[in-house]
Amino acid sequence: MLVHKTLVDSGDRVVSIVPTYQQHFSIPKSIGADVHFLKLREENNWLPDLDELKRLVFPETKLIALTNPNNPTGSLIDKEMLKEIADIANTADSWILCDEVYRGTDQHGSGMTASIADIYEKGISTAGMSKAYSLAGLRLGWVAAPNSVIEDVMIHRDYDTISVGMIDDYLATIALESVDRLLERSHEITRGNLSYLSSWVDGEKKLSWVKPNSGTTALIKIELPIKSYDFCVKLLQNTGVMFTPGAAMGMEGFIRVGYANNPEVLKIGLSRVSEYLTNI
Amino acid sequence: MLVHKTLVDSGDRVVSIVPTYQQHFSIPKSIGADVHFLKLREENNWLPDLDELKRLVFPETKLIALTNPNNPTGSLIDKEMLKEIADIANTADSWILCDEVYRGTDQHGSGMTASIADIYEKGISTAGMSKAYSLAGLRLGWVAAPNSVIEDVMIHRDYDTISVGMIDDYLATIALESVDRLLERSHEITRGNLSYLSSWVDGEKKLSWVKPNSGTTALIKIELPIKSYDFCVKLLQNTGVMFTPGAAMGMEGFIRVGYANNPEVLKIGLSRVSEYLTNI
Repeated sequence: MLVHKTLVDSGDRVVSIVPTYQQHFSIPKSIGADVHFLKLREENNWLPDLDELKRLVFPETKLIALTNPNNPTGSLIDKEMLKEIADIANTADSWILCDEVYRGTDQHGSGMTASIADIYEKGISTAGMSKAYSLAGLRLGWVAAPNSVIEDVMIHRDYDTISVGMIDDYLATIALESVDRLLERSHEITRGNLSYLSSWVDGEKKLSWVKPNSGTTALIKIELPIKSYDFCVKLLQNTGVMFTPGAAMGMEGFIRVGYANNPEVLKIGLSRVSEYLTNI
Repeated sequence: MLVHKTLVDSGDRVVSIVPTYQQHFSIPKSIGADVHFLKLREENNWLPDLDELKRLVFPETKLIALTNPNNPTGSLIDKEMLKEIADIANTADSWILCDEVYRGTDQHGSGMTASIADIYEKGISTAGMSKAYSLAGLRLGWVAAPNSVIEDVMIHRDYDTISVGMIDDYLATIALESVDRLLERSHEITRGNLSYLSSWVDGEKKLSWVKPNSGTTALIKIELPIKSYDFCVKLLQNTGVMFTPGAAMGMEGFIRVGYANNPEVLKIGLSRVSEYLTNI
């Protein structure tokens, strides 16, 4: 929100990759920006089609908004593709705002997605404690960007909220001093759970997906003659398991499954879903 | 911010009492509201002129924004006057948003300002932990309003910030369980300090004021041929004492003095200011 408020004015052209957090397109819209969407598609493994992006990015494009790793799909734009996106942005002298809140949760290696702020001069990376560090309760995030942007963002932050909680700030500092142990714990949970979820999806005839490469959520296609919202409500009522309907993020026909919970809870939940799927 | 975003639309008429926090008029302005000001005047002891308020409140007035106790003046609208303001609002079916963040710091009795939410059906009171409870670092506040408003505010809150920090929430709960001791401590500091400040102002020929009835700030007139900003900068450079220039809140010729600090620090600071005033 702070970055949009800092950079985007009424009438500015903004390109947002969807699905993503609603804020990434609704806030520029609320400012009066001319927002265009680049829809991620299953056949591209939920990665942006760069030819389409080229067509959407005009000289007057002010900002391109990405989410990498992506929520809800768990897709991951690699460093090479980020560089190509930066090249496209550069032709229009556009800012790239990349929400990297899931940075650290990649399924391989260090878990650390390449950061747009390291790749592109006008790249802005935002992230926080809530995902890879499993400390959403601290309500603390950060912005990596050129100094001029940071100065303006600080003014907006001072106006809106003054600061994050001092205790949250202190505890986040302690947590980040033990970043390796925190990430190791996260990787154990998310890699183990995704592996389990993957076998489970493979065994369910009514479900299919593009397996995520990062994040803690997966978008799963339901091959059933039922709307995603109705499916999720009935599933919740019958089994106590809650998925998010794809319709809530413009992805009818899909459900979003968060898999960063306790491994035992995940297993019990999925077995209940299996039973439910057999009986409908 | 949440209340303005919930109730105010572009074109709505809003009346804001000034001086106050900039947000109370700038946020409705940024939404596109038609904002009118009711300026508090020294000759009214920094209390609103109700005849002027009547002239400003038209049938189409959506919201009247107050701050009570007031920052920067420390003036306090009593229950009777609040009722009269509610009657004026009622003629236009307007909401009253009353920022009561200094509630609990009155100089007399329990310290508890009457709350607009208790007085008027369309009264909305906002407050938080930062002033009377001396816990600004927790970044936690609340809104008291009719259910319909609260429901809409919750949706805005969920969209903007999801929640306050969980640890802040927990610690604020503990603090509020000891509310009497916290307020007693605050009263000791603010009442003792204001009494000291009062004697000091009385002894300074170049200063005059309307003595505050609440809050932790006072607006002091400087009878010197110097702009408030220049005065504050020079004072800071020469003595290390920082006051806020009235010009920052549309009150040229005044300075804002916060007096809720350590009593010893206050005494040392004021004696330095005395010395400075003698020599200019």
